[in-house]
Amino acid sequence: MNDKPEGKDRQVTEITPQSEDFSAWYIDVVRRAELADYSPVKGCMVIRPYGYAIWELIQQALDRRIKETGHVNAYFPLFIPEGLLTKEAEHVEGFAPQVAYVTHGGGEKLEERLIVRPTSEAIIGTMYAKWIQSWRDLPVLINQWANVVRWEKVTRPFLRTTEFLWQEGHTAHETEAQAEEETLKILDLYKDTIESELAVPVLTGRKSESEKFAGALRTYSIEALMGDGRALQAGTSHNLGQNFARAFDITFQARDKSLQHVWGTSWGVTTRLIGAVVMVHGDDNGLMLPPRIAPYQVVIVPIPRGNWQQTVLPRARELRASLQTAGIRVTMDDRDTYTPGWKFAEWELRGVPLRLEIGPRDIEQSQVMLVRRDTREKLPTPVEGLARRVEELLAMIQASLFETALRFRDEHTTRTDSYEEFKRIMEGRPGFVVSLWCGSQKCETDIKTETQATIRNLPFRDPGQPISGSCIKCGQPAREVAYFAKAY
Amino acid sequence: MNDKPEGKDRQVTEITPQSEDFSAWYIDVVRRAELADYSPVKGCMVIRPYGYAIWELIQQALDRRIKETGHVNAYFPLFIPEGLLTKEAEHVEGFAPQVAYVTHGGGEKLEERLIVRPTSEAIIGTMYAKWIQSWRDLPVLINQWANVVRWEKVTRPFLRTTEFLWQEGHTAHETEAQAEEETLKILDLYKDTIESELAVPVLTGRKSESEKFAGALRTYSIEALMGDGRALQAGTSHNLGQNFARAFDITFQARDKSLQHVWGTSWGVTTRLIGAVVMVHGDDNGLMLPPRIAPYQVVIVPIPRGNWQQTVLPRARELRASLQTAGIRVTMDDRDTYTPGWKFAEWELRGVPLRLEIGPRDIEQSQVMLVRRDTREKLPTPVEGLARRVEELLAMIQASLFETALRFRDEHTTRTDSYEEFKRIMEGRPGFVVSLWCGSQKCETDIKTETQATIRNLPFRDPGQPISGSCIKCGQPAREVAYFAKAY
Repeated sequence: MNDKPEGKDRQVTEITPQSEDFSAWYIDVVRRAELADYSPVKGCMVIRPYGYAIWELIQQALDRRIKETGHVNAYFPLFIPEGLLTKEAEHVEGFAPQVAYVTHGGGEKLEERLIVRPTSEAIIGTMYAKWIQSWRDLPVLINQWANVVRWEKVTRPFLRTTEFLWQEGHTAHETEAQAEEETLKILDLYKDTIESELAVPVLTGRKSESEKFAGALRTYSIEALMGDGRALQAGTSHNLGQNFARAFDITFQARDKSLQHVWGTSWGVTTRLIGAVVMVHGDDNGLMLPPRIAPYQVVIVPIPRGNWQQTVLPRARELRASLQTAGIRVTMDDRDTYTPGWKFAEWELRGVPLRLEIGPRDIEQSQVMLVRRDTREKLPTPVEGLARRVEELLAMIQASLFETALRFRDEHTTRTDSYEEFKRIMEGRPGFVVSLWCGSQKCETDIKTETQATIRNLPFRDPGQPISGSCIKCGQPAREVAYFAKAY
Repeated sequence: MNDKPEGKDRQVTEITPQSEDFSAWYIDVVRRAELADYSPVKGCMVIRPYGYAIWELIQQALDRRIKETGHVNAYFPLFIPEGLLTKEAEHVEGFAPQVAYVTHGGGEKLEERLIVRPTSEAIIGTMYAKWIQSWRDLPVLINQWANVVRWEKVTRPFLRTTEFLWQEGHTAHETEAQAEEETLKILDLYKDTIESELAVPVLTGRKSESEKFAGALRTYSIEALMGDGRALQAGTSHNLGQNFARAFDITFQARDKSLQHVWGTSWGVTTRLIGAVVMVHGDDNGLMLPPRIAPYQVVIVPIPRGNWQQTVLPRARELRASLQTAGIRVTMDDRDTYTPGWKFAEWELRGVPLRLEIGPRDIEQSQVMLVRRDTREKLPTPVEGLARRVEELLAMIQASLFETALRFRDEHTTRTDSYEEFKRIMEGRPGFVVSLWCGSQKCETDIKTETQATIRNLPFRDPGQPISGSCIKCGQPAREVAYFAKAY
């Protein structure tokens, strides 16, 4: 990682307040909560166990949905012969500046350079051309969990790194309509996963021509709003049309016996989602994890009074066991080298949704103290029925985090027809601005140059309802409603 | 893949009999069952959905055990700066000839070449040096699921490919004894997983000096016997001693306040295990999958008689649902383009442990026909209590596959003190030969040159019981018992 080289190896002891420097706050939280660390490889991060455990929970939630909708996983080579990438003209133009080249292997110079995959359309398309013969072979619905490499000049853990982890779906269909249906089905699947598991509200819509995937017919995206009012693209789903099928010669014999090109889609979300979780829910005390993707949903802190190791600790262990039996992810911090106060701050920083304190007095009263990470509310709770109560609270926290994020987004979404107001908004912590757009790339570029705001996406709308109004920039008749924002 | 370039793109329609050409049989099964396919990248394979589903089941079984023993997952960069690899002298000597170099990225020549990881000791060691300060930070028990690249001249799907998937554990400990304990604990974990899930019996033991991991103190391995009498190394666990800790300066403040180097281990198993499953259990009809790692444990084939789509199919769907409810992995082949006979052969080829046939007469009699893949036994079975019966049969098949493989190994394991007999055995389909060895590398090398047999490993033995006898090769006093075999 090279965005803060001067601070690379300092120990993070305190977290910069969000209000002081959101970007420094983000890096501090990522490093201090041990989600990720800088590596000796420029632009590449190490995902530490706590961060990776979050990724595993996101993967499970997503993988289940991907399989429930009829997709299967597979694995394609990391390397792509240079000649393959160049087959789709727009695709190579989009990715060539970002690729890493392998030139030597096994002690010899390679005859043809290999590209480390930045995405796998080229290699997967080549295989589909072999596998697909007839309409009976369609649809092909394959997903891959993999690492990809895109050379980046400025990087930030999770948000933009040279290597990152992702899933990439690649499908082939008989008809254009089926490809479009798949593209939108996946967009909904992403929205559902990210809203219900990560508690991050997202806006769905279509990307403008200038922001679409290199080689796609149409790109759809989900966009989330971070705590500093900047947008983050959280996932994309591409209708590839027949572009890649033509480039890689993926044909099939249709029902009418004619030879046709398949209709393709591709779609992906990445470890960037972890960055979204940090920036949507975190506060000056650190991380705040939605229970569904929290590696630990409850941390038990035994209060060391008297001979606590004989009295409190055994009881704490029983509670841990009973919560685990109920399927709750629990850890216990029984280290004797730290005070309870230190532990409270530490586990808040790590974003554990619920803290369970238990001391001698609690045991006398057959209760424990539950403390919510989000509201910091203290809730004395009877041991009787504890697991059920914890489950209720976790569900409440999950819902509450989503509602809070949604409210923040609503409060930071402005509709305006005035370019003066548009520019004023973009100067502060802007959020989304909804405005009308003529559809020209010139206006899009001018707005970006003047305000740094880009079109995040164009929301779906009733095609029967025409747009009346004029472009926020040029005043010509508008053809689109657009979500604008400064973006990561 | 480049081992059979002439046959690369032929459609596999029939499977070469094992007795005719085991190697051709293997490739035919892998391709015809759609486990893997050749890719346009030399030495790299595509793991197709059916093969990848097997890998996912192996991963789950292994990952659960890795976590139950206190390990956590993380992710380290794909690339390693060349300078890091060279820090451990033996390590670089062992791996340098096999690495792929990235020389260009983002349109520029890199200042320092990057290596695509062949294994991650160097990059992980570098991070451990940052993270570990005190004995309180130990042990560090981290595992990674990743792709690695080792340039290979001769490749074969799953068994030896330039890129492969694996897990690699990397741990750091306070004492030598703890590192040794970890190394052996993992060896046992591998043995347990592979024997109970893959139904592949393995021999555990220590590698000879010449076969140990580049940079390790001691390497332990598990070795399995394939259907052609050749051995396959199925996993390794290395006690790294303090070699990497010294090379990467991984130190900690010990309990006595002195500064010491950590004691390390590393261990891994790969997608090669899928090749082992094919070659241990498969027969001339194709694949034979142990139920625990079979993507489909049962295939339902409705028998198309009369108006079967109105009568048989609804009943078949009910059975599928009830088996799925019981947690059994089921698929149904209701395609009307293939005959039942074709389907029977097809699903046998794909190794599904149980076939369930249901036709009009079965429905009348409230029964189904179950057919075992391993014994091909036909078992008329009442619908009443079907799920429980299927579970019983799957457990029986799992046990039976293991016992059959174990019997085969026992029948192909010979103890001999005569080098003449040793050489004779190695000429056919040899299996393991257990012989005494003086411990000299010269004898090991001479035996390999003359017979192609290598020391697979040195079984654990009671240190109190001295070895009496002489080396199979030189006749000098023996210091070790050794398992010899021709190996993949």
